[in-house]
Order: sequence, then C-alpha cells, then structure tokens
Amino acid sequence: MDYSFSDKLANLRPSAIREIFKSLTDPSIISFAAGNPSPESFPTEALADIAADIFKTQPAAALQYSITEGYPPLREAIAARQKAKFGIGRDFDTTIVVSGGQQGIELACKAFCNEGDVVLCEEPSFIGALNAFRSNGAVPVGVRCDGEGIIPAALEDKLRTCENVKLLYIIPTFQNPSGITTPLSRRKEVYALCKKYGVMILEDNPYGELRFAGEDVPTIKSFDEDGLVIYCSSFSKILSAGMRVGYVTAPAEVVSKMVVAKQSEDVHTNIFFQMLCHKYMTEHDLDAHIAGIRALYGRKCTLMLDCLGSCLPAEVAFTHPEGGLFVWCTLPSGLDSADFAKLLVNRKVAVVPGATFLSDEGGISSSFRLNYSMPSDEEIVRGVEILGDCAREYIAAHRN
Amino acid sequence: MDYSFSDKLANLRPSAIREIFKSLTDPSIISFAAGNPSPESFPTEALADIAADIFKTQPAAALQYSITEGYPPLREAIAARQKAKFGIGRDFDTTIVVSGGQQGIELACKAFCNEGDVVLCEEPSFIGALNAFRSNGAVPVGVRCDGEGIIPAALEDKLRTCENVKLLYIIPTFQNPSGITTPLSRRKEVYALCKKYGVMILEDNPYGELRFAGEDVPTIKSFDEDGLVIYCSSFSKILSAGMRVGYVTAPAEVVSKMVVAKQSEDVHTNIFFQMLCHKYMTEHDLDAHIAGIRALYGRKCTLMLDCLGSCLPAEVAFTHPEGGLFVWCTLPSGLDSADFAKLLVNRKVAVVPGATFLSDEGGISSSFRLNYSMPSDEEIVRGVEILGDCAREYIAAHRN
Repeated sequence: MDYSFSDKLANLRPSAIREIFKSLTDPSIISFAAGNPSPESFPTEALADIAADIFKTQPAAALQYSITEGYPPLREAIAARQKAKFGIGRDFDTTIVVSGGQQGIELACKAFCNEGDVVLCEEPSFIGALNAFRSNGAVPVGVRCDGEGIIPAALEDKLRTCENVKLLYIIPTFQNPSGITTPLSRRKEVYALCKKYGVMILEDNPYGELRFAGEDVPTIKSFDEDGLVIYCSSFSKILSAGMRVGYVTAPAEVVSKMVVAKQSEDVHTNIFFQMLCHKYMTEHDLDAHIAGIRALYGRKCTLMLDCLGSCLPAEVAFTHPEGGLFVWCTLPSGLDSADFAKLLVNRKVAVVPGATFLSDEGGISSSFRLNYSMPSDEEIVRGVEILGDCAREYIAAHRN
Repeated sequence: MDYSFSDKLANLRPSAIREIFKSLTDPSIISFAAGNPSPESFPTEALADIAADIFKTQPAAALQYSITEGYPPLREAIAARQKAKFGIGRDFDTTIVVSGGQQGIELACKAFCNEGDVVLCEEPSFIGALNAFRSNGAVPVGVRCDGEGIIPAALEDKLRTCENVKLLYIIPTFQNPSGITTPLSRRKEVYALCKKYGVMILEDNPYGELRFAGEDVPTIKSFDEDGLVIYCSSFSKILSAGMRVGYVTAPAEVVSKMVVAKQSEDVHTNIFFQMLCHKYMTEHDLDAHIAGIRALYGRKCTLMLDCLGSCLPAEVAFTHPEGGLFVWCTLPSGLDSADFAKLLVNRKVAVVPGATFLSDEGGISSSFRLNYSMPSDEEIVRGVEILGDCAREYIAAHRN
C-alpha cells in the first residue's frame, strides 16, 4: 500500500529530543539531553496517600468521563493561586486544564491558524511547540534574539513584512533552549508591538516557578489588559511530568474554541490525576515543595557550571541560568554542534544540538543544550569531563 | 479584542453530547443522554491495589516523562490479546497507546487529511469523530445505511463521485448511535470497495467486547491483508473512561505519522494509568471482568426494552441491540426529535436527538438515542414511563 499522507505531516519528522529520549534506554549513556524533571521533584509519598484516598472516597467520579474544561475545583485552585501569586487572570479570562502545556500550545495554534498561517517565535525555540505548529500546517518563523530575548526591532520587522501572522509564541522566562529571561521592559515592548499589529501572544511558562537566583519578572499575561495573551503552564516540572496535566489561562472567547478542539482530541484530561493535583494543592504545601525543587536545581546547576568552568576550553561559551533546567553552550563560530553531538554520543554523552530548535529545519547551529535536572551529581561531573575532552579535540581538529 | 479564529474552528460548535453532559449536574434529571459506562464496570478495588503497588515499586517511572508510542509492556499486552482473541494485527502492523479512542480517530484524520479533504462515514455517526474531522478542516460526508450498516452501492457512489476522499470512518459493531452491527459479508464488500478506490478505513470499535447476545462478527481489521485499516479501540468501556487510555493498531508506516502528531498534542498518554492497565491485564482476569460487564448490560438493556415495549406508543420504533450501550428510537416520519427532546428535558428526561449525529449539521432527524448503561434500574423504569407519556402527547399534538 502506498500511503498518501497529509501535507502537514508528510515531511514532519519526530522531535529529535523524543528520539534521543528513546535511545536513552541505553544505561551506559550519560544524558544531558532530556528535559525531564528530577525524580526527586516528585512528592511520591503524598501522591500515593492522595491516590489511595481518591480510590476510597470518590472512585466513580475519578474513573468516569468528565467535562472537557477540566475538574472544576482544580480550575478554581489554579486560577486562585495564579491570581494571588503572579497577578495572572482578569475578569475576561478563564482557566482550563489541558493534557500538559504541550496541548495548550497545540490547541492555541489550531484555534487561530489556517494552513500556511505564520507563528512567530524566538530563534531558537522549543521543538515541541515548533512541531505543534507544523503539524497543524502553520509555519513557524523565527525572530532574532539577543541576551535579553526577542529583539523588538526584529519582531516589528516580521510583523510588518510577514503575511498572515496569527501568533507570537514566546517563552520569556528561562527560555528553552537558551535559558534567557526577557526583562520586563522588553516584555512590555513585545506586548505593545503585538497589540499594534493585532497578533495574539502565546506565552509558555513551564519553568517560571523554578527560579533559584535573581528576582522574578512579571509574566506578559500579568499585564494583559487587552485579552491578547494565551498563557500556558503545567504541573510537569513541579509535581509529575508523566501525568500530563497542564493549564491554560486565556480570554473566555478564545478558551471556548480551544475547548471545542480539545473535545475532539482527548475528550478531557485524565480525571484521576486532575483530582490528585487538586488535593495536593489544597491539602499539602505546594509552595514549600517547589522551594525544595528550586534548592535542588540551584545546587545541581551550580555543580554543572563549576564543572563546565573547569573542564570546557575557553572558546566554548555557556550561559549562567537563574532558573529552569538548561545550560546553553556555544562552540566557536562556524562549528556545527550536530556534528559535535554525534562524536559526543559515541563517547556516551548525549546533548541536544541547537539546530533542533531552529524554525528553519535545515539550519546549522554552533550551540547545544545541556540539562542538569535529570542526571545525578556523579553523571554531571563525569559527563562534563568527557564533554570538555571532546570539545578540546573537536575544536583542535577543526582549527586546521 | 476581535478574535479571528481559524476557519476550521470558527463555526465548530461544542458537541451537543458534551453540552448535555455538562447540564447533567442537575441531579433531578434522568439522563439517557450520556455514553458513560456504568460505574459498576470499574474494578475499583483491583485498580486501587495496583496503584498502591506502582507508587511503592515504580514511582519514578510512573511519574516521569515517557515515550510517545506508549508503555512498551502495555503495547505488547494489547497486541498479544488482540491477536489471540480477535485475529487482529499482521507483521506490518504496530500497536500504540493513545489518550482514548477519540485521539486515535483524530490522529488518523490529521495524518491523512488536508483541509477540504473528505472523510466518508455512516449516516448517522459518532459526533466526537465528526467533530474531530471538522476540527482538522476535513469534511465528513455521510453514506446511507440500512439495518445492516453502510449500503455498498451508496458507498461506491460516494467513492466514485466525491473528490479527495481520504478515509472511510466506520463503527461496524454496535454502531454509535444506531446500534447496528454490520454483517461479515457487508464488511467484506466495504473492504473491497475501499481497496478498489485506494481509501483507508478507520475502524472504530469501542463497544466490540460488550456483546451480550448473538455471535461475534470478525472486525474488518482481522481480514486486512493490504494494510488498509487503522483500528481504534480503548479501555474506556471495560476498565475506566476517565483515565483516557485507548489504542490504535495500524500499519507501522501509518502509525509513525500518527506518533509524530501525537507528540505535538500531548507528548504521551498518562503513564501511570498505562502501567495500571498493563498490570490489570497481566495480573487480573480481564476477560472475566468483561464477562461481568456484559451480563450487567444485557440485564439493563432487557429492562429498558421491556419498559419501552410497554410504555412507548406503537408508532415509535426502537432497535433491539445485541451489545453496546444504546437503543435507537424513531418517531413517526416527519417529526423532529430535537424538538421532542426539548419537551422531554422539561419533564426531566434527557435523550440525544438524532440530528446531533448527522454529517450535515443543519439536518433534521426523527430518531433519538437512549443509553442504558449509566442510569439505575429505577431511573430506567421511571424515565421510560415519562418518555412514553411525552411521546404519546407529542405525536397526538403533531397529528393535527
């Protein structure tokens, strides 16, 4: 049988990260490639107790079909916490539960984009989002960034010259993969530009609560007076990634379209784990739990930065994140990190080459992404040693 | 803010069933409207024990990101059981886990359909599938059915005259909403026609294991020698609907495209419940459990048919299902069941009018769907009494 696939999927390849993740069943590989939270971040005992309680007291509701918008007490708890802690959510906004932040991104694209429409995004950006746009027939177009995120002049240039721009996708806090946090003044410029050109902002904030240094910066959603921002976040990095529970806060009119699309995708998100999240939020101290994760990641990040400082040749630059899960490294100009990553995986260390995160699938990048949340301390020390050795060899071999 | 939504979602309304479901928080309404399994069908104690065991022995794996294709031991268990019991799955096929059968349907459409492409389907058909096609910009086109399902001549007519037909969506066993089971000879005709015209078959079989009378009919997938059939089913009606765990068996090349699309939708299905399904399948007697559900639904269906027989006026026809969840009733020709359903809900009985299930959203139907799995015995008796009274009044009022 000769299959004739849709145009949008015919040429879409699986995410390199997911593919790397699959190869990580090889236990001899030290992986800095995944975006996984540390298993130490899962409050296993509390979740086990809550699960037992749900099976005892509400089994019929926890195992039965539920409503697409999500478990009402969870929606309320999320909305209340966001409002109180981060100033997110106005009268015109609604919060719904989705199957991971990923689904929020995908639904936003489906709600706004016809095939061929453009989604502007930071260059580089999160591969899962880029592929969500592509799998809906939308076209991701990268906007140039500097150390403070998207460059307003570059954004305005794209807004002015690209046809059919429907969304700006942005991860302003601890950006994936670059780790950059966009300062408030820049966020306000981005907002003003999108307002001027009538383009919705899709603000993705999966890492916002994982700050271990510096000061919080207000989300773009917190100053969204015009109903311009669709805000996505999730419990993946603070409770459990495998349960696939995320949430979206956006104007009710936008949410209603996303709900219709979600109905057609999975009817609703696993209701048992929605109830579990609600009980954890209301019967346990989520903030104290998150404080523990911040401390853990701060320590692990410092360890990785120390190792990078002592092992990497001086020609390799790397960021000093104040939160999130990633360090972004850059080889000397002209070197191809995809080629380097292949060498490295033969030495049993996995990283994600920067080209993975480009809007142009054929692009070349000299950068690569390292994750410090998942590997053990021993793996960080040993893996960065290997990384340093390989980088030295690779640079020497390509200097000639 | 004036939002400009995508063409595919701009006019798509929420599923009437989901909306009715939301209104069912009114406990004074007797609902025959949902498609919910009976809460008695959930093996709560066994699931609670398994969940406690997973939290104790494999918490890190059960709460962490996992692979898009699904938990490998579950995929193997499903594939082995399907092969052994139903002859489903050839060398070229692969089985993956999806977030409910709904996601399998949606992914199949995304993999094959560009905007404007046609999906043929039984008329009437499952609203969740119709909306999955619409939300991807595909156009569902109904094919005329008789008491044995899709009429081959009508199917060939559409295959010959419609442009860009990519899929035939079919629920050949205990069809939703009509309850019809297509006989083997008819299934073979359908298969041969789709093969002749090079159109994929999307076979949806959520109710196949719920037969309480008559003999099993082989699935279309079981005689798919050509790699033409994408087969979707789920645990929703045999373990838990709220956990959102379904599966797809299709040629590996097709599955690989669906996996790329799934990655972009929810990364993977809740892994904890995948592990739970696997343990239930391998450590408990799933077949014995299903036998219990069949007996329960057989009894409830008989009760409803007895009540319908004694309460409904003779002008109202109704089916005698051998399995599944639904009875399909038809008012005298010319009457509008949507109008009747409104009257009925004022009398505190909810049914789903047949127009909901038409490919033409503006269509009118004299039929309506009744569910017998969810209401209690008392609700069936009382609800059908009210239904009978209303039908008599409605017919009398419209005879004049």
